[in-house]
Amino acid sequence: MVPEAVTNALDANLDAHVEGLCEFLRMPSIANDPARPDPCRRCAEWLGDQMKQMGLSAEVVDAPGKPVVLGSAPAGEADAPTLLIYAHYDVQPPDPLDAWRTDPFEPVLRDGAIYARGASDDKGPLWAALLAVAAWRDAGPLPVNVTFLLEGEEEIGSPNIDAVVDAHAERLSADAAVIPDTQFFTADLPSITYGLRGLAYFELELRGPSEDVHSGLHGGAAANPADALARLVAALHDETGTVTLDGFYDAVRPVTDAERAAWRELPFDEAAYAASLGVSALGGGEAGRGVLERLWARPTLDANGLVAGYTGEGAKTIIPSRATAKVSCRLVPDQDPQQVVAAFRDFVAARTPEGLTADVRVHATARPFLVPLDEPVLRAGREALQEAFGCPPAMIRCGASIPVAECIQRTLDLPTALLGCTLPDDNPHAPNEKYALAMLRGTAAAIAALMGNLAR
Amino acid sequence: MVPEAVTNALDANLDAHVEGLCEFLRMPSIANDPARPDPCRRCAEWLGDQMKQMGLSAEVVDAPGKPVVLGSAPAGEADAPTLLIYAHYDVQPPDPLDAWRTDPFEPVLRDGAIYARGASDDKGPLWAALLAVAAWRDAGPLPVNVTFLLEGEEEIGSPNIDAVVDAHAERLSADAAVIPDTQFFTADLPSITYGLRGLAYFELELRGPSEDVHSGLHGGAAANPADALARLVAALHDETGTVTLDGFYDAVRPVTDAERAAWRELPFDEAAYAASLGVSALGGGEAGRGVLERLWARPTLDANGLVAGYTGEGAKTIIPSRATAKVSCRLVPDQDPQQVVAAFRDFVAARTPEGLTADVRVHATARPFLVPLDEPVLRAGREALQEAFGCPPAMIRCGASIPVAECIQRTLDLPTALLGCTLPDDNPHAPNEKYALAMLRGTAAAIAALMGNLAR
Repeated sequence: MVPEAVTNALDANLDAHVEGLCEFLRMPSIANDPARPDPCRRCAEWLGDQMKQMGLSAEVVDAPGKPVVLGSAPAGEADAPTLLIYAHYDVQPPDPLDAWRTDPFEPVLRDGAIYARGASDDKGPLWAALLAVAAWRDAGPLPVNVTFLLEGEEEIGSPNIDAVVDAHAERLSADAAVIPDTQFFTADLPSITYGLRGLAYFELELRGPSEDVHSGLHGGAAANPADALARLVAALHDETGTVTLDGFYDAVRPVTDAERAAWRELPFDEAAYAASLGVSALGGGEAGRGVLERLWARPTLDANGLVAGYTGEGAKTIIPSRATAKVSCRLVPDQDPQQVVAAFRDFVAARTPEGLTADVRVHATARPFLVPLDEPVLRAGREALQEAFGCPPAMIRCGASIPVAECIQRTLDLPTALLGCTLPDDNPHAPNEKYALAMLRGTAAAIAALMGNLAR
Repeated sequence: MVPEAVTNALDANLDAHVEGLCEFLRMPSIANDPARPDPCRRCAEWLGDQMKQMGLSAEVVDAPGKPVVLGSAPAGEADAPTLLIYAHYDVQPPDPLDAWRTDPFEPVLRDGAIYARGASDDKGPLWAALLAVAAWRDAGPLPVNVTFLLEGEEEIGSPNIDAVVDAHAERLSADAAVIPDTQFFTADLPSITYGLRGLAYFELELRGPSEDVHSGLHGGAAANPADALARLVAALHDETGTVTLDGFYDAVRPVTDAERAAWRELPFDEAAYAASLGVSALGGGEAGRGVLERLWARPTLDANGLVAGYTGEGAKTIIPSRATAKVSCRLVPDQDPQQVVAAFRDFVAARTPEGLTADVRVHATARPFLVPLDEPVLRAGREALQEAFGCPPAMIRCGASIPVAECIQRTLDLPTALLGCTLPDDNPHAPNEKYALAMLRGTAAAIAALMGNLAR
């Protein structure tokens, strides 16, 4: 239960808090943007300043990649447990820009929601967590010690999170962790996510002629990297949608009957889901398995981008000099990303045709994540969500990857609750991303309640 | 034989002629460039003015697409035959721009050659033809009537050439035609091309989710247009490099034994050819056939461009909303481009997966072209090349498409000589395109000689 004084403190300055979030959202903190001065560093420094203004201690800490912001606030009692709060301040690139109704980095309030890149993923929930701790601190002593780990590379796969957590393991030691970076299951149903998929993200380049050549003069002689790329990418699935990488499914942990039964109870509307994507049928993944199983408990492989040759208006008759595919796998327990990397490299090496050369780069890997359903922090989180949103949450998995969750579990040995506090139509990673003001308030209330519950 | 007076007239003003060609090359006359004012129209008007200054009659004629320049010059004798000279003033787009050593539209003289987009394809040879007629006219009466047809849409497949030739059939009527738009067979060996491949150029777009969606949240449910595009493009060939479109090879005319024997005599160095493309092996085309046969007498299919999803730096975890391929077929006698179009549409319709929609656009079609080897204009051309370059030309085919050649043959019923007067390393359609000054002079001399030979 959250004391009324905390709730009052939270509500007292909500307009100012929204303005603060908008300032946060104006910073284009894209981790793979080479812009100088670095917008991620500026964002981290701004965040540290804000935390100090809220009465929390904060430090911007250099890391191998983008800086992290570490922070803390002490509990009123010496033997109180410690809660680690993780969130990320970096955002996805905004393209395709022309699909946005308004500038992705100029937040706009429309129909009770803030529209901006990063609004729901993850700046809004991060901001809510700060507000929760600050409100409780304003109203009285904190029931738990709080430690913040705010990262700037989540959207590029957290390539340095292991090093950061290793380097600061002592400061980050805690009794449980919470990560506010997942979704409601439906618009009315909060969630706790106890499983996430891992990731292995590749870039494959095939090179042929030393420059683009005339497809009439040389078509039939020069091997075509674009055709070969298509063959390679196509061969990564068989006709049933099964991924063909060697040993890909060997370590996949089967879904338990209890889990499958629980998922059947969830209010999942397949037709509405398809409609939300704008498609007539859910043709992705392996044939013969249910949609939730395909999304949550089965590994996948998707081409995320292709480019080769002439892509402008009209016709240009060339054989491209090179062709590139970005390809990524989502992984489930107990797959090992490094085994998938090796299998992908072997696959490409075995299938690169004569006259072409291939190059594979690994952009990111992340291990899959699963929390036992009987962990106490999951119970504390369930009750917190029920108190904040008036509804017991769904216990779900999620198809996305949050590498830090697995890293915290593995490195710090912490049970972790992923609090679902954004809406399914918030468009993370897509144009017109948004975050409802009601969700900002609710997320803050839920995190405040979780703090109280953990202290019991 | 070219009279000495004509040769002298040709050589008298060569520096000025080179400066004129450079002015021609500065105009970015790209047929599919939407720039305003239209650089093609400006180029056509400039060309008409130049022709008038050379004493030829010229008219810029509106056409459904880019304007054509029609011109003429009368013979000294009333019953002289008429030669139609076709060339094109449009050029390929210059990209990839960063692979050019110098600005593609600022001609540079280096090592005896002019470097610029269009230098050899086809502004240089067009200019040489004008110089040849002007020189003969300066030196005395022309031995043949000359008619010019100068087009501005060759590089986009001459989509309107049939309409233009139809509309002006009377002005274009002649006894033979010459097209200076092909290559020497080797650096030392001029050529006459008696066969060209046709073309069918498609753009295929697959559409899935209404916008790019998160590949973690939706991977395994949403069908991926990029993966599906790869499967479709891959399926267009079987594992032997054979094109799988229904009926694709049905009308292919076999190479005669005499032709194959003549080709075996040609100084064709496969390893040097592969090296010129920068590849270690010639992996294109159908397995089990020779390179020249694959290039000249077999149809091919090549992806000319692919684009889908995220193509920037680093990683972005999305399932693309759409994926596009530009795909073109080179066709040989007696394939019908319209049958290939129909087969391609059928192929796509039969293989578009559930949850995706497909759209096929046809950018260009051209029929294949073949001149009987015993046509008199081929003999006149052979002797002209021998006189101009001191070497009897190779009689070859070419894998590229020049739709007007087939159009002139079909609509005007003219035997046509394709004079090979650019070098194999001139980089048409590629960065650092060039044209040697010696070839400018030689091409003009060859066309002058052809005029004389036809008059005999």
